Amino acid sequence: MVTKDTLSGLVVYLPKEELLIEFKKLMFPQGNKGGKKEMNLRRPSCKKNENFSNRYFEVCKRDMIEYFNISGCYFPRPLTMAIWEIMQIFFDAEMKKMKVVKNWDFPLFVPPGVLEKENEHIEGFAPEVGWVTKSIKSDLEVPIATRPTSETVLYTYFSKWVKGYRDLPLKLYQWCNADRWECNNPTPFIRSREFLWQEGHFAFATKAEADEELLQILELFRRIYEEFLAVPVVKGWKSEHEKFAGGLYTTSVEIFIPNTGRGVQGATSNCLGQNFAKTYEINYVDEKGETATVWQNSWTYSTRTIGVMIMIHGDDKGLILPPKVAPLQVVVIAVPCKNANIQRIYDACTATVSALCEAGIRAEEDLRDEYTPGWKYSDWEMKGVPLRIEIGPRDLENDQVRTVRRDNGVKEDIPRGSLVENVKELLEKIQQNMYEVAKQKREACVQEVKTWDEFIKAFNEKKFILAPWCDEVEVERDVQARTKGETGAAKTLCSPLDQPELPEGTLCFASGKPAKKWTYWGRSY
Amino acid sequence: MVTKDTLSGLVVYLPKEELLIEFKKLMFPQGNKGGKKEMNLRRPSCKKNENFSNRYFEVCKRDMIEYFNISGCYFPRPLTMAIWEIMQIFFDAEMKKMKVVKNWDFPLFVPPGVLEKENEHIEGFAPEVGWVTKSIKSDLEVPIATRPTSETVLYTYFSKWVKGYRDLPLKLYQWCNADRWECNNPTPFIRSREFLWQEGHFAFATKAEADEELLQILELFRRIYEEFLAVPVVKGWKSEHEKFAGGLYTTSVEIFIPNTGRGVQGATSNCLGQNFAKTYEINYVDEKGETATVWQNSWTYSTRTIGVMIMIHGDDKGLILPPKVAPLQVVVIAVPCKNANIQRIYDACTATVSALCEAGIRAEEDLRDEYTPGWKYSDWEMKGVPLRIEIGPRDLENDQVRTVRRDNGVKEDIPRGSLVENVKELLEKIQQNMYEVAKQKREACVQEVKTWDEFIKAFNEKKFILAPWCDEVEVERDVQARTKGETGAAKTLCSPLDQPELPEGTLCFASGKPAKKWTYWGRSY
Repeated sequence: MVTKDTLSGLVVYLPKEELLIEFKKLMFPQGNKGGKKEMNLRRPSCKKNENFSNRYFEVCKRDMIEYFNISGCYFPRPLTMAIWEIMQIFFDAEMKKMKVVKNWDFPLFVPPGVLEKENEHIEGFAPEVGWVTKSIKSDLEVPIATRPTSETVLYTYFSKWVKGYRDLPLKLYQWCNADRWECNNPTPFIRSREFLWQEGHFAFATKAEADEELLQILELFRRIYEEFLAVPVVKGWKSEHEKFAGGLYTTSVEIFIPNTGRGVQGATSNCLGQNFAKTYEINYVDEKGETATVWQNSWTYSTRTIGVMIMIHGDDKGLILPPKVAPLQVVVIAVPCKNANIQRIYDACTATVSALCEAGIRAEEDLRDEYTPGWKYSDWEMKGVPLRIEIGPRDLENDQVRTVRRDNGVKEDIPRGSLVENVKELLEKIQQNMYEVAKQKREACVQEVKTWDEFIKAFNEKKFILAPWCDEVEVERDVQARTKGETGAAKTLCSPLDQPELPEGTLCFASGKPAKKWTYWGRSY
Repeated sequence: MVTKDTLSGLVVYLPKEELLIEFKKLMFPQGNKGGKKEMNLRRPSCKKNENFSNRYFEVCKRDMIEYFNISGCYFPRPLTMAIWEIMQIFFDAEMKKMKVVKNWDFPLFVPPGVLEKENEHIEGFAPEVGWVTKSIKSDLEVPIATRPTSETVLYTYFSKWVKGYRDLPLKLYQWCNADRWECNNPTPFIRSREFLWQEGHFAFATKAEADEELLQILELFRRIYEEFLAVPVVKGWKSEHEKFAGGLYTTSVEIFIPNTGRGVQGATSNCLGQNFAKTYEINYVDEKGETATVWQNSWTYSTRTIGVMIMIHGDDKGLILPPKVAPLQVVVIAVPCKNANIQRIYDACTATVSALCEAGIRAEEDLRDEYTPGWKYSDWEMKGVPLRIEIGPRDLENDQVRTVRRDNGVKEDIPRGSLVENVKELLEKIQQNMYEVAKQKREACVQEVKTWDEFIKAFNEKKFILAPWCDEVEVERDVQARTKGETGAAKTLCSPLDQPELPEGTLCFASGKPAKKWTYWGRSY
């Protein structure tokens, strides 16, 4: 039995029973008849490179979410929730190492006046806040906000919980739902009215501690994307214009979607400085008996992670799930043929699944006799299961199984004697390959520019643009104004923590002033 | 290391590390100075038998929840969440056995028209529904409800997910927050605007299956209360008047609070019949190829469980937590005295905690030197920790520790050589004793009546009244009208599944018609 302790670095962990999911039951309604016509209906209607956006919606809708008739609202289906849970288990374990306390459930409703107390913050969030104004037929005296994020409601309490230096650091986080009402271009996972996320809130005695832990959290976000979702990211600082409303500075992991030429802010880790602490009076008595004000961080990642994964990895057939987050890692399909001993094949499938599950690999057999093997191949391919195993009469004879990789279609016969080791190895390879392929695609989009003309050319070619910049808010606003168009204006995505060399005398591509840093620019989601 | 597999029947399981909680950090702000004055401030200001309601609010507020300034809103503190999580782990394991799928996250927002579709249901819930009507300054075209419960939004999808007989039974549940806006007498845990709960939704091919599984769920609710929270319940049917709005019949576990003479509906398991299924068109093709309609159950328990536990078990000092749900089961306190080797005592405390934790007992030492032992005793007593261990110089000499039970104050010296076995035994005894004491108190309140006069007398004495009843809605309404008063009218609490014998010819206490069943009556929360 594989336990959660074997988390780190391994593809294989978390037996499927822990997810409380029965794939055969919930991946598809069984009332379906099968057949070519139905399969065609279920396939994405367009190719990834032709109509990326439509295809994304289709894939999400078929396997990952349910739509409902409130604009911008979706809710996750079991496949999504199982992926989310796998990431949660990783993250909870890391939080434990950092001594962060999870046992909180902050309120959904924000009391009157609390959200508005921090000016910059409410300016940034106001357009996205929903307000409950009535119950039954009576109007509430004062509208109550549903949380867009919990800083304001929580920090009212921080001032109560932090009294002396021994109360610091105070490190809390929770998993919950949050709401954003004003949605431009609602997109499943990426931008929706209700979403699931984790939010963390830290208070420290010193800025140095805040600076340090912020980067530790950012590193966890990198690991979620790169190690689990096989999605390459850039760690960086957000510009003054793009930082968290009311904070001191914001770091993020940024992803670039080659097909649309847009950046996505993957997750953010914010240093709030002492701005909120001053507003909400979060003070403490230090070692010398003097009153001091805390330094704060807040940080979050959401189900957006899953949307990004779908965008990066899918192909014309549908989803491709990285093995590490795939709730079902291996599907075993019986390939009977006339005159063969069908029961023997079925038994071999079941034995194969047992052996894999025993080793902690999440595997399931598909023995439905109302579908042809070919139909089942397509069905599971669409659902993104990383590895398929086929077992037919010839495999029985040769004491082998046939493996088919979802990421590159490569087929390989492996002896049943070394089944587990070979499957583990294949899953590791798939995970690694998915990351490498994604990284190569992204690298092919990076364009270094130094002048405005080069910038405009790269922007029109939808590149992931790296440019020397003077780091001035006015210049960013000016670039936005000058590039405004139907497909969105150019904005800063992030300034990478890992800065390329900036030779003295390098000028800003946009203002001609001395450049202060390299910054990624582009369109964004 | 004790694992979750040892759940059943044992007091001892779930190592405290799993709860991601550091008690010393979060149970109290450490800025506090201690001292008698502060302790007095923290103690409940009134005795349990004198002002039960005030005392309940005080205990909740000090250790279990945070208030905030929206009437009827509270949010749970880590101690509450840790108890909730312990119950979740039990319940998730039971759901797995029943093959219920957890990986769902139903939406918070209910689309326009969906809630209203089922007439009886919306009539029952309308007074409690909150409506989001605006975002920023613009009003929404149609108000959007926040979920009071998920039947209506979910069953719209059941009709999509259920196509053929092989899709049945469909069994889903989730953990989430829910909202009820119109609150009479908001009371922490018992009645609040936002609360945490679990909700389950089943669809079956036959009524027989629905009837059977409903009782299986009810049995789990009984176990949560009786085995975990040490709270005795009565399993029963709700009356037609009190059943779930829109359902066919409702079963519940009912608790009686002796101090206030009120019943509390602990949790409900509802048979919805085919009412919702017809409204939302949840049909399927059966084995014969004919179209049929499903039978449905829905059921839920909420953080109300924790409020009931506080009401039943607290004493004048504060909380008493049953060992099985106590996040901290044993606190070990050093009792140094002048001239003693303090470090040796501290080492013995740490070694004791290690030995207990090793055995899966949730223990922690309190070595704070800014407080006296007596102050710490009071502090942990208020927090309800079931067992205290004291270690002083004399204990070291005799190679023993002193144990003090929270439930009855009994002190006992136990040899260090049999520490673990003795502590386990003590925890089991405490759990058992708390249940027995609570049951005796309840039994003392039960009053069997046969006539209206007996009924009124018992009602005025705040008894848990068991009476033969004709089971007619009109009669229940009539009893309510006739008993209306400042402290609430009489209503049915439940008709126990385990019915006492009802001799032929027994008449209803209220109407004088032939009685059909024994039913509990009283005031309720």
